[in-house]
Amino acid sequence: MYGLISRIDVHPGQRDSLADILLEGLTGLPGCLTYVVAKDSANPDALWVTEVWDSQASHESSLSLPSVQAAIAKGRPMIAGFSERTVTEPLGGHGLASEPAS
Amino acid sequence: MYGLISRIDVHPGQRDSLADILLEGLTGLPGCLTYVVAKDSANPDALWVTEVWDSQASHESSLSLPSVQAAIAKGRPMIAGFSERTVTEPLGGHGLASEPAS
Repeated sequence: MYGLISRIDVHPGQRDSLADILLEGLTGLPGCLTYVVAKDSANPDALWVTEVWDSQASHESSLSLPSVQAAIAKGRPMIAGFSERTVTEPLGGHGLASEPAS
Repeated sequence: MYGLISRIDVHPGQRDSLADILLEGLTGLPGCLTYVVAKDSANPDALWVTEVWDSQASHESSLSLPSVQAAIAKGRPMIAGFSERTVTEPLGGHGLASEPAS
């Protein structure tokens, strides 16, 4: 499995809009086992995305899907930067979807 | 929903053992929607745990469950510290279990 833990810093006031875009773009992602979008409870301009994929290749392939390309294009102006981005190797756990997002 | 993103620093060579303990302790956690244990790909002594609970109260209640108490007691000597711990408010996504871990 392949994992990513990212903190996205958004321009002030745009966090909810970016979260909506990310959540809308989640349909039909082959190999996506977890994709959770969360607000940072202490920082009003930070959003966390935690992802688990069956492989790094599935994650990379997803980036060229039309729905993901559209989400990136729509969301990019709201993003100030990625202040943290950690690549992980998930070992297991609870809440790993057995079916692709649909 | 209530979320936690934690980086656990382990004493050298003990990461796999701690991961096993954490994964074993996952059974029967009411309100637990996601609990993923992952190795940091760049740091051999770091483990990430990403959690989503239906409420902060469910998370707090879990800490007094016998299985969790046992996992804490067993794992504590392997832990050097928590270098990151972020509380989040998950908004949604893919891979949120609708059933408790069992």
